[in-house]
Amino acid sequence: MDVARGATQLLSSQNVGDLVDSVEAFLFDCDGVIWKGDALIDGVPQTLDMLRSKGKKLVFVTNNSTKSRRQYAKKFHSLGISVNEDEIFCSSFAAAMFLKVNNFPREKKVYVIGEEGILEELELAGFTGLGGPEDGKKTVQLKPNCLFEHEKTVGAVVVGLDQYINYYKLQYGTLCIRENPGCLFIATNRDAVGHMTDLQEWPGAGCMVAAICGSTQKEPIVVGKPSPFLMDFLVQKFQVSCSKMCMVGDRLDTDILFGQNAGCKTLLVLSGVTSQPTLLDPSNNIKPDYYTNKVADILGLLEP
Amino acid sequence: MDVARGATQLLSSQNVGDLVDSVEAFLFDCDGVIWKGDALIDGVPQTLDMLRSKGKKLVFVTNNSTKSRRQYAKKFHSLGISVNEDEIFCSSFAAAMFLKVNNFPREKKVYVIGEEGILEELELAGFTGLGGPEDGKKTVQLKPNCLFEHEKTVGAVVVGLDQYINYYKLQYGTLCIRENPGCLFIATNRDAVGHMTDLQEWPGAGCMVAAICGSTQKEPIVVGKPSPFLMDFLVQKFQVSCSKMCMVGDRLDTDILFGQNAGCKTLLVLSGVTSQPTLLDPSNNIKPDYYTNKVADILGLLEP
Repeated sequence: MDVARGATQLLSSQNVGDLVDSVEAFLFDCDGVIWKGDALIDGVPQTLDMLRSKGKKLVFVTNNSTKSRRQYAKKFHSLGISVNEDEIFCSSFAAAMFLKVNNFPREKKVYVIGEEGILEELELAGFTGLGGPEDGKKTVQLKPNCLFEHEKTVGAVVVGLDQYINYYKLQYGTLCIRENPGCLFIATNRDAVGHMTDLQEWPGAGCMVAAICGSTQKEPIVVGKPSPFLMDFLVQKFQVSCSKMCMVGDRLDTDILFGQNAGCKTLLVLSGVTSQPTLLDPSNNIKPDYYTNKVADILGLLEP
Repeated sequence: MDVARGATQLLSSQNVGDLVDSVEAFLFDCDGVIWKGDALIDGVPQTLDMLRSKGKKLVFVTNNSTKSRRQYAKKFHSLGISVNEDEIFCSSFAAAMFLKVNNFPREKKVYVIGEEGILEELELAGFTGLGGPEDGKKTVQLKPNCLFEHEKTVGAVVVGLDQYINYYKLQYGTLCIRENPGCLFIATNRDAVGHMTDLQEWPGAGCMVAAICGSTQKEPIVVGKPSPFLMDFLVQKFQVSCSKMCMVGDRLDTDILFGQNAGCKTLLVLSGVTSQPTLLDPSNNIKPDYYTNKVADILGLLEP
């Protein structure tokens, strides 16, 4: 996939038409691209409407695992954007689909270090999840003769962003991975930090995943970006060749890499975690095809 | 330090006399060597008494950071072993000493992801600690316009085992390391798991340290075993050359490596996390000079 690429171009009124004309489906990351925390980024709805009016397929691909597709659709609607559940590919959904395509036995259980979205997607896919928010209030007793019990039927541990992370969950997940034969260790993603609120960044799933790597000394299977796992679904569902897709995101090491690995066009927006100096620094070797300040520039440059 | 070493020998009545005669100071790990959780391992007091009666210096070097030296001395006494605070080198003490020898400014503060022992050692060394157990009950609000504030005067984050780990502490430590210029990231140790109770292992400091590595994408300064930092203190205090020391421990990658890196003799006991098959497996390249089932074998083999 390491084909020679031209230099990164600033999106402009000269090249935006070619980009939009050559693409059939736009894949958008959400945090830092569509919104920051719960605040919509300026001009997004109008831009999405314009792209839809031109017959473009729109897909939303987010590493945030705290919500299910259903919950994401609700969030979009609450921000005034009409999006179908089928257009949303979140890493909670990816985790459930990974188990499904790998014929994970229905009689086995899945322990979740993460939030509601993962449990909901597991249930929709027909799996039994344990843990998650429910274990957020549990405490441990480091006392003599106290044995911490875990279910031997757990065959996979899914780790995502968990704002209720605690020692109980860390011990539960660690015991399953270390002691249940063949137990899978699945990470929704490894983002170090993310804009969980509009004003600042917070530790991301990469923090919780690393904690379990630290205690188990094992590496996870990653199902979110930049892993190619979700792309297979997209391609199958939308029947668009990757060369006619454009991945729009704010992160070089997840969004842009995800798009490039699949052979998509890529557009970095500077409305999220990546600054222009970081992008253009010689030490950065992940170079998108295009970059611009924000999604709305697509509209602004096309229809000045 | 990678001098050629002979094969690992099982401790026996043939070689135990030479070992004891050639050593002036025995360095003991604690968890899995002296005790498991709160249960003393059989025959330890008698063995320590015998070694003291032969004029050997005894030193206790533990990566467990939850207690201070004072609290460890209390634990030894409660188990019927008389040990002086000065003979105890725990990683909580190591963290405070690291700041001291590096002239960490007194006006700066230290944020602690860890337990009481670290805070106590920091205070004894004249530093101001924040966080620790006190932050174990704090929660975060991922709400719009909520800004998580952190002290800009924090100049070091110390991470150790923390059974009250939560998202508040992870965000606090991450913000200090990412945003306070020059802020140090100090790990008491990186043990994956440890015998926090007698019946089973639990995630160790390596779990919390990895979490902060995951969110900050930085690597810590490690002050506990196998880092050589503590050895400098030992050598200075006890005025014994490393070749006349024997490190006794249950972990290959911390205890035995720590001893070998300094040029000490090493004795692995199988009463903790390492099994004989693991020790003798061809994939293991950390080979102690001697190994035996438990500390009391030194006494049993010397005085059958």
